[in-house]
Amino acid sequence: MLALAGWDLGLRCEFLDPADEPPASGLGPIRKHPFDDVAALTTLSARTDVLTYEFENLSAPALSHLAAATRLWPPPEALAIAQSRSLEKRFFEELGYRVAPWQPATSQSELEAAAATVGLPAIAKLDRLGYDGKGQQRLHGKDDLAGCFAALGAKPLVVEGLVRFERELSIIGTRDQQGRCVCYPLTENQHRAGILHRSVVAAAETALQAEAERLFHAVAAALDYVGTLAIELFQAGGELIINEMAPRVHNSGHWTIEGAATSQFENHLRAVCGLPLGSTSAHGAAGMRNFIGALPRAAEVLDIPGLSFHDYGKTARPGRKLGHATVVANSSQAVIDALDELDRRVPPASPND
Amino acid sequence: MLALAGWDLGLRCEFLDPADEPPASGLGPIRKHPFDDVAALTTLSARTDVLTYEFENLSAPALSHLAAATRLWPPPEALAIAQSRSLEKRFFEELGYRVAPWQPATSQSELEAAAATVGLPAIAKLDRLGYDGKGQQRLHGKDDLAGCFAALGAKPLVVEGLVRFERELSIIGTRDQQGRCVCYPLTENQHRAGILHRSVVAAAETALQAEAERLFHAVAAALDYVGTLAIELFQAGGELIINEMAPRVHNSGHWTIEGAATSQFENHLRAVCGLPLGSTSAHGAAGMRNFIGALPRAAEVLDIPGLSFHDYGKTARPGRKLGHATVVANSSQAVIDALDELDRRVPPASPND
Repeated sequence: MLALAGWDLGLRCEFLDPADEPPASGLGPIRKHPFDDVAALTTLSARTDVLTYEFENLSAPALSHLAAATRLWPPPEALAIAQSRSLEKRFFEELGYRVAPWQPATSQSELEAAAATVGLPAIAKLDRLGYDGKGQQRLHGKDDLAGCFAALGAKPLVVEGLVRFERELSIIGTRDQQGRCVCYPLTENQHRAGILHRSVVAAAETALQAEAERLFHAVAAALDYVGTLAIELFQAGGELIINEMAPRVHNSGHWTIEGAATSQFENHLRAVCGLPLGSTSAHGAAGMRNFIGALPRAAEVLDIPGLSFHDYGKTARPGRKLGHATVVANSSQAVIDALDELDRRVPPASPND
Repeated sequence: MLALAGWDLGLRCEFLDPADEPPASGLGPIRKHPFDDVAALTTLSARTDVLTYEFENLSAPALSHLAAATRLWPPPEALAIAQSRSLEKRFFEELGYRVAPWQPATSQSELEAAAATVGLPAIAKLDRLGYDGKGQQRLHGKDDLAGCFAALGAKPLVVEGLVRFERELSIIGTRDQQGRCVCYPLTENQHRAGILHRSVVAAAETALQAEAERLFHAVAAALDYVGTLAIELFQAGGELIINEMAPRVHNSGHWTIEGAATSQFENHLRAVCGLPLGSTSAHGAAGMRNFIGALPRAAEVLDIPGLSFHDYGKTARPGRKLGHATVVANSSQAVIDALDELDRRVPPASPND
């Protein structure tokens, strides 16, 4: 989606992807190497004007090594923080923002102590390399503690207490090389089995949007960030509690392709290429539904008025994001109605599909 | 632009283009053959599910030959009519629509008789293969008649009388395989030296839009058309006079990429692939400015709020369309202001550039 967004700006991409059938196939040369292959990264950087990434499980040290010699954004320091739940939570706390109660744990006994401190129910999560609900275990009661550290691979964990919240939101924005920021309207997110199912532009009060944008500016500035950044939030009453951030274009911002004046992808490219940022205003109300594990035919989706279809060209696998639909409509209710209709016609896969 | 619009629908294109550096480079395999190479067209048709075109100087007989064996839209009959000004004018007249006064001419003496009939000033135009103001000669007075037939290549001509009109408009729409039509808002067009310079979504009364859509439906139905079709019009008082049609996506509809819910390119692909058509509603007001002969840097364009940039990846040549800018804004006046600002910063090339 980044490569497509850049095509008409005259940008041509080359890719590094170890996958057999990368989604970028057909849009430029692809080098099939592991993401931490410094030689391959160096070759890519020598052949290109700017390097960027849209996937977090990269080697931050390998990127930092490159960053000295090349134009590379977002900054590897932001990636390094986002890759570690404990670093990330400390970073947000040091900026003065609230996160869910949490404790690190590097052993079964620390895990039990952490659970006692944050209180049960809680969730034990791998400190590093978890995503889409993987590398997590729910701790409903004390019985769930036994063997949990070993079950999660005997690796550093964080234990997170549950937060009461009304809804999950994300604030997505883009920061340019001069430090100017633009933010999209807050998006409300619904997950199924730990994977994002639906995002809808939130009917948010002006004050909440302003608070989220202040938070975005503070986080992006502290990271000396360049590019599109997503921050996932819990709304509890009037308060925003930070869940986590993603130093990249984000699934909850996919609606911006049709639903905003400038997409998160185009703004990311504009930022890393030193171009002026574009307007983030939404075209009315908008929303997005993921297709996970199985992809409907385009006609099934497009038959519902207001819907657009995105096929990532990936091979189907259980739990894999294969595409999405966007809906743009005149009201939030019309967006939700269209997404409900889509859920009826194309039921979401069960977690085991 | 068609190939890009289809990418996320899961459509992959192959191309036939005799050019050395075709604009589609990098988006799929390109066969470098003349457009009338029946063997190359046959190979292409055997390798693809659907054939379509976005360029009129094709061989209608070669396409008709294919159409019996392949899914090919728009229908070659529409192309054959559009390729001949005289066939086209007769077609519109037979449907009951008004065109500018005209006469065919196949010799100097017929040219002089035609000029006497339609009255001067007039324009002599090649019956076939003229575009962007090429193959035309203005006849201001009788002195311009001398040698005109030879100067235009001693080929069949039409002589068109001038029409008094307030503005040039185009109605663009898409017809699907079941005969359903969707139309975009009327666009007002400004030419410079015979080439489209600017198109702006017209502030049109509902009645005028409805009349243009009725005309579109009648023309498209008579052609048994499938795909996106553009009809250029003169507005004279409340009346619409047909100038010409283009059986393809059209330059005056390029604003639909950012400015409409579904672009003319995506709707063309949906139609020829048998998918449901998308909404043609505009996101507020929108407009487009061509870059002809020279392309500004992306940053020069994007520095003006509301503008998007499209670089076709073509080698610069005098008079060649190399890209365009789209503007989307809250009001027609804001669109015009932004395009005026663009004209100040990036002055249009003079006709000889």
